[in-house]
Amino acid sequence: MEGTADFEATLEGLLSRRARIVGPTVWAAAQPDPRPVISFAGGLPDIPSLPAGELERAVRAVLERERKEALEYGGTYGPYPLRVAVAERSSRIEGVPVAVDQVIISSGSAHGIGNLCEVLLDVGDVVLAESPNFPGSLRTFRSFGAELVAIPLDADGLRVDAVEEALRQLDAEGRRPKLLYTIPNHQNPAGCTMSLARRERLVQLAKEWGFLILEDDAYGELWFDAPPPPSLFALSGGTHVVKVNSFSKIIATGLRLGWTLGPAPLVARMAAIRYDMGTSPFLGRVVAEMIRSGDLDRHVERLRGIYRRKLERMEEALRRYCAPYCRWERPRGGFFLWLALREGIDAREVAIEANHRGVLVGAGAAFFADGRPTNHLRLAFSYVDYEDIEEGVHRLAEAIEAVASRSRGS
Amino acid sequence: MEGTADFEATLEGLLSRRARIVGPTVWAAAQPDPRPVISFAGGLPDIPSLPAGELERAVRAVLERERKEALEYGGTYGPYPLRVAVAERSSRIEGVPVAVDQVIISSGSAHGIGNLCEVLLDVGDVVLAESPNFPGSLRTFRSFGAELVAIPLDADGLRVDAVEEALRQLDAEGRRPKLLYTIPNHQNPAGCTMSLARRERLVQLAKEWGFLILEDDAYGELWFDAPPPPSLFALSGGTHVVKVNSFSKIIATGLRLGWTLGPAPLVARMAAIRYDMGTSPFLGRVVAEMIRSGDLDRHVERLRGIYRRKLERMEEALRRYCAPYCRWERPRGGFFLWLALREGIDAREVAIEANHRGVLVGAGAAFFADGRPTNHLRLAFSYVDYEDIEEGVHRLAEAIEAVASRSRGS
Repeated sequence: MEGTADFEATLEGLLSRRARIVGPTVWAAAQPDPRPVISFAGGLPDIPSLPAGELERAVRAVLERERKEALEYGGTYGPYPLRVAVAERSSRIEGVPVAVDQVIISSGSAHGIGNLCEVLLDVGDVVLAESPNFPGSLRTFRSFGAELVAIPLDADGLRVDAVEEALRQLDAEGRRPKLLYTIPNHQNPAGCTMSLARRERLVQLAKEWGFLILEDDAYGELWFDAPPPPSLFALSGGTHVVKVNSFSKIIATGLRLGWTLGPAPLVARMAAIRYDMGTSPFLGRVVAEMIRSGDLDRHVERLRGIYRRKLERMEEALRRYCAPYCRWERPRGGFFLWLALREGIDAREVAIEANHRGVLVGAGAAFFADGRPTNHLRLAFSYVDYEDIEEGVHRLAEAIEAVASRSRGS
Repeated sequence: MEGTADFEATLEGLLSRRARIVGPTVWAAAQPDPRPVISFAGGLPDIPSLPAGELERAVRAVLERERKEALEYGGTYGPYPLRVAVAERSSRIEGVPVAVDQVIISSGSAHGIGNLCEVLLDVGDVVLAESPNFPGSLRTFRSFGAELVAIPLDADGLRVDAVEEALRQLDAEGRRPKLLYTIPNHQNPAGCTMSLARRERLVQLAKEWGFLILEDDAYGELWFDAPPPPSLFALSGGTHVVKVNSFSKIIATGLRLGWTLGPAPLVARMAAIRYDMGTSPFLGRVVAEMIRSGDLDRHVERLRGIYRRKLERMEEALRRYCAPYCRWERPRGGFFLWLALREGIDAREVAIEANHRGVLVGAGAAFFADGRPTNHLRLAFSYVDYEDIEEGVHRLAEAIEAVASRSRGS
């Protein structure tokens, strides 16, 4: 007879292959620091602008008008009125017609990505992933046993020439990737946006080589001066591209609601493999109401101004305090500025030193699948209070100087 | 270069093993019939009592008091205040102390079940499942490639002697199950409740043989005269049992929110393997508010009365119109009455005939993993309007008579 003491051993013996691959560690987004720190760390939205009033209005409208439908099962594709609203809004944003059967609603884009992995990935499959990249998605691919092949970025986004090279090299080994993962707009963490020419070539490669592109567009709507080039999805003609999107950055991360656009037969496979009986009709209809009322588009327009002003403030402060030690490309939107430190200044040491001085930054190595040393820091300008940005950058400059002078001394 | 025409072939070649197992068919709960029918088909809650007012109040309270926390990420275990509220409420209901680290929040119990499958199941693993059973869960086990072994039920629930027999038989083949799936209270579809003696013996077997019990308790709180015996979870001493629960039947299916209780190390594995960044903090905090305010407990008490009256009405009508043709055991709670037709009356034919006459019932065969012929119908008394129950049973009686007279004629 087994007791508590033996149970953990029993459990180990019962685990699936995936559970053994993923291990016991629970992955979590950056936790709030209990100290009164200034945070450039988490990729989190601006707090004061969270649209609580709009949400409350939409809840009231939905419970008055469609109480029954909002409080009943809505199906595995997600609530129908939200799919309709998303298809209409996406047709406008993407510039190509999007049909309802190309839309599936997910519990945030992280869930959309995982749902696609369920449909595609077995242990040992190859996934091409631009590098640096969002660690949460890389963790998901790995949890399915995928082998990640890193493709470098530059100021124009994914190095598509390096994709071709990787395809040829894999081919020589008798292998092909199933999936290529990219964040083409205002990339996390590098802030860059993929050029139109590269987008067109990448779609062509997917069709030539028979793999799928997973286009993560969490930040695409949050452009500052002009919209980014057409999406890979829009350029694809309806095949080979799955685009995951999220209401997290344009409404609230706490909704856990996103949408995926893709070829209808693939979207059907995603719906078929789900075991959660679909995303909340209540939440979904609330967001559909925010789309229909125009509240969402007005809010997105407001957010563009908020994040542009925060970025400008950060760049001013960087020019004032940090110029001798670093350079950066101005992101055209999104949440992140990718700061390259002068050679010889260790980014990890700067992140630690900055933490001691009460400013949190992301050390670049965390965004490389192989954790390689890099002289980059990720600065999120999205979450921090506007008034704290200058002081945060000032403290960061002091941290950089401290590390630089230590390096000179050694 | 591939075009749209070739894409479906490409997609087939890219599918994961699980996607091929589960196939392209999207599973959905029973859809509403567009005709003015009376439905005893779907396991859906009573509509007029859906607590929209309570929900709206809770939304307002949460957005006023904890706007920031409700609209930010809440972690992979689910929103903390809901876990605390569930742990406290469960300690009271289960009669044993439940700690917060034994609680994980899911997108409905269907998601909790799938999440557990991710942690445990590889292709070819054995799952014991009581039979008849809820087809949605069986579909999930199968989608992970599990081999289902059916264990029969009787009026006292799962035949635990048959579990022992199956364990010995598997052992003779050198195999062991990883999981046993049971709905011990007001079972779906059979309505029965497992006796205390069987519960105790089943927990003992799990400890002796080293498998886990998945206790699905979607209907447990909806008892009519007295609460069911202690749960398998409560009897287990904290090991070998995972209990999935849902707010679907006690608040609304449209929330997609449930909770799972289990041994802390197993719950941690469930949190670790999730890729969705946790269940909605917004929704979760709204439900936590409904728990804290007492609204949920008051609502559950009200529902017990509503469903008891609906069952009583159904039994009266069955005695009046159907008595010569069938028998049943009165369920002690839940949504379902499991009607055994007199031998020689084909249940599937009755379901079709009833459908023609404008009353929808569940043909028993749908609830057996092997689709075996059975003379049972599942009558859900939960969703139908109280006033329509008598007329629905009357039509059902006519359908039974029509099939019976055809059988006599043939």
